Amino acid sequence: MDAFPKSLLDGYRSFMSGRYVEERARYRTLAEEGQKPQTLVIACCDSRAAPEMIFNARPGELFVVRNVANMVPPYEPDGQYHGTSAALEFAVEGLKVKNIVVLGHGRCGGIHAALAPDAEPLTPGDFIGKWTTLLKPAAEQINANSAMTAGERQTALERISIRNSLANLRSFPNVATAEKQGKLKLCGAWFDISSGELWVMDNKSGDFIRPE
Amino acid sequence: MDAFPKSLLDGYRSFMSGRYVEERARYRTLAEEGQKPQTLVIACCDSRAAPEMIFNARPGELFVVRNVANMVPPYEPDGQYHGTSAALEFAVEGLKVKNIVVLGHGRCGGIHAALAPDAEPLTPGDFIGKWTTLLKPAAEQINANSAMTAGERQTALERISIRNSLANLRSFPNVATAEKQGKLKLCGAWFDISSGELWVMDNKSGDFIRPE
Amino acid sequence: MDAFPKSLLDGYRSFMSGRYVEERARYRTLAEEGQKPQTLVIACCDSRAAPEMIFNARPGELFVVRNVANMVPPYEPDGQYHGTSAALEFAVEGLKVKNIVVLGHGRCGGIHAALAPDAEPLTPGDFIGKWTTLLKPAAEQINANSAMTAGERQTALERISIRNSLANLRSFPNVATAEKQGKLKLCGAWFDISSGELWVMDNKSGDFIRPE
Amino acid sequence: MDAFPKSLLDGYRSFMSGRYVEERARYRTLAEEGQKPQTLVIACCDSRAAPEMIFNARPGELFVVRNVANMVPPYEPDGQYHGTSAALEFAVEGLKVKNIVVLGHGRCGGIHAALAPDAEPLTPGDFIGKWTTLLKPAAEQINANSAMTAGERQTALERISIRNSLANLRSFPNVATAEKQGKLKLCGAWFDISSGELWVMDNKSGDFIRPE
Repeated sequence: MDAFPKSLLDGYRSFMSGRYVEERARYRTLAEEGQKPQTLVIACCDSRAAPEMIFNARPGELFVVRNVANMVPPYEPDGQYHGTSAALEFAVEGLKVKNIVVLGHGRCGGIHAALAPDAEPLTPGDFIGKWTTLLKPAAEQINANSAMTAGERQTALERISIRNSLANLRSFPNVATAEKQGKLKLCGAWFDISSGELWVMDNKSGDFIRPE
Repeated sequence: MDAFPKSLLDGYRSFMSGRYVEERARYRTLAEEGQKPQTLVIACCDSRAAPEMIFNARPGELFVVRNVANMVPPYEPDGQYHGTSAALEFAVEGLKVKNIVVLGHGRCGGIHAALAPDAEPLTPGDFIGKWTTLLKPAAEQINANSAMTAGERQTALERISIRNSLANLRSFPNVATAEKQGKLKLCGAWFDISSGELWVMDNKSGDFIRPE
Repeated sequence: MDAFPKSLLDGYRSFMSGRYVEERARYRTLAEEGQKPQTLVIACCDSRAAPEMIFNARPGELFVVRNVANMVPPYEPDGQYHGTSAALEFAVEGLKVKNIVVLGHGRCGGIHAALAPDAEPLTPGDFIGKWTTLLKPAAEQINANSAMTAGERQTALERISIRNSLANLRSFPNVATAEKQGKLKLCGAWFDISSGELWVMDNKSGDFIRPE
Repeated sequence: MDAFPKSLLDGYRSFMSGRYVEERARYRTLAEEGQKPQTLVIACCDSRAAPEMIFNARPGELFVVRNVANMVPPYEPDGQYHGTSAALEFAVEGLKVKNIVVLGHGRCGGIHAALAPDAEPLTPGDFIGKWTTLLKPAAEQINANSAMTAGERQTALERISIRNSLANLRSFPNVATAEKQGKLKLCGAWFDISSGELWVMDNKSGDFIRPE
């Protein structure tokens, strides 16, 4: 137990004497009745982009998958382990969420890696290299554009990755069906770490727009 | 944009007028200098167990993977997509985190599914079924124990899953090496949704103990 | 005189009874002593992006060229008519301006035309078609990107056009020399018609950033 | 971004806290629905003669070309870059403006240059020298008149330049046709920087008269 990070224990004590006090009854109810989140958020692991903070969410509101670059692999019923697909299945069929939000963000390290396909693998397993091949065709198109700056290429691929995840979500037959039946809405959003701005995707055009 | 959940937009506005104001300078610095989290947390998607809330973390502190039942698959450098392994590689080799915390919790739906192997698949793809085979041997042992109640079996497997993830983390050669060199600490914790209690794993015995 | 648009005459009368009264002495001085603007602005003809309004400028402050899509052709001392080059020469050598600002904006019709090279010419002279060939290589790269939305392609080319104009400005030997000597600064900015936001170009990276 | 003129940033902030607040809804509508200006103004770059100020115009009202001495070159479908002709084509055929106003002004530096043909070129490219040859025959006639003062010659050529631009506008077949069909009106005006007076051209006689 000595190994447990002191900063996390300190944080836990703050939680218990602060936020938990307000939410005590809610936690109790959520434990007894089970969770009923309305929304699945697919977000990035980045330490600066926690969905609960950005959406000021209370316990029980958001079912959250977090992986590098908020990606959804395409539907592959091949009997392999698919962590994101498993969470998606659980959220849509088990919890009957009403919304799926893919949340991307600026300065994403995973997107940065996708734009540097010739970088040295971080380990011999090259898990990041393989994972970011989900964005390979889009990254190649972006990299072919010599007139865009490095920053513009990064932002463009961050937004493409969100649309890519949404397209892959729709490759799951149950997701596509639920959306067609009006039982499920799919949305995208992009968070600017530097300014705190949230940009919401317009479902028709795919453009990102600041709300209100 | 009409499709975007109103509750999330409202939450975002609360964030911007509240917490963001306090953290504005921190976000700006985190954007300019990049993230430098000390800790990777592997947690569950469950809407009641957000690590940032439980550890009262500020932006930039926790790099967070969330999948069903906070699992880590074993090291498999097979060229397939491995979202959790990619995040692990990025955290350890790219960000040089000093701690990895596997955070489980009570009333976990993924653990519940692992204890019901004959349940109907949620979709023909059966992604949850496949994902929870990572816990199959442990679940079978637990299910064979007729003297434990359903609640005890659930809690037992939740804690086994944390130890399982820690063992699988050590199957990654770079993780094992970094731990041996004292550069990386691996820990476990389990959060009781009903009471708000955090139980921390003793690294020697594997037991879960309430801190302090 | 009957042909003169009534709305403009009405506007002129408002000017005379309003703003002109405040600026009367200033106009008089500017007439007697000549203009001494510090800044040349190269802007678009668009009716929604007048630089004097965006920069709240007083008479005498901005020397303004306006053409379709705020373009600067490259240095071509070929004896042809070059309206923009003539204005540039006059501003830099005659008026000794200290700054040149290239001001682009969102929803630019000229950029839209550049991204539709196969559109029917508006007249047999095809002046817009020829004028926008200044952006042809950049427009082709942008159009090759199937993962960007039409809106994203438009914004990207609007910003590339600003950088293009800045690069072409530097192809004029006198501009390049004055910049090297520290007598002249070159900058870019992009105005969002919808939100009123001004994005200023970072001279090192070429990225557009919101000031302050 | 450090290079961006502080006076312009200050002016932008004044705009945002002042005029923009009044025009916010208008800008939003103009962004969504596109610009529909009724009038193309061909004006001079001079910092003292901004058409939006003189005509107290709101965003979206005036499509504005500005070059040295408010000139329109004759119709030359020769495949060269013609910035003014491109803007004219876009305004008449793309935006279907109903009016074209050529706006000259007193103390015009371009007209002054046209009256001094033997002056040293400002740069080896001599772009001003070439540009003002559009007025060469008229300037020679004026210079031949020894009875006019320098000031009178200046004002005379300023007004001739307006009539010249109007004649050149009519050399564009589409402009001439639209005017004949009553779809387009062509007008001239001259602004006295010193007194703020606007003089409007009588279309029959070509004389400049003060309105009302």
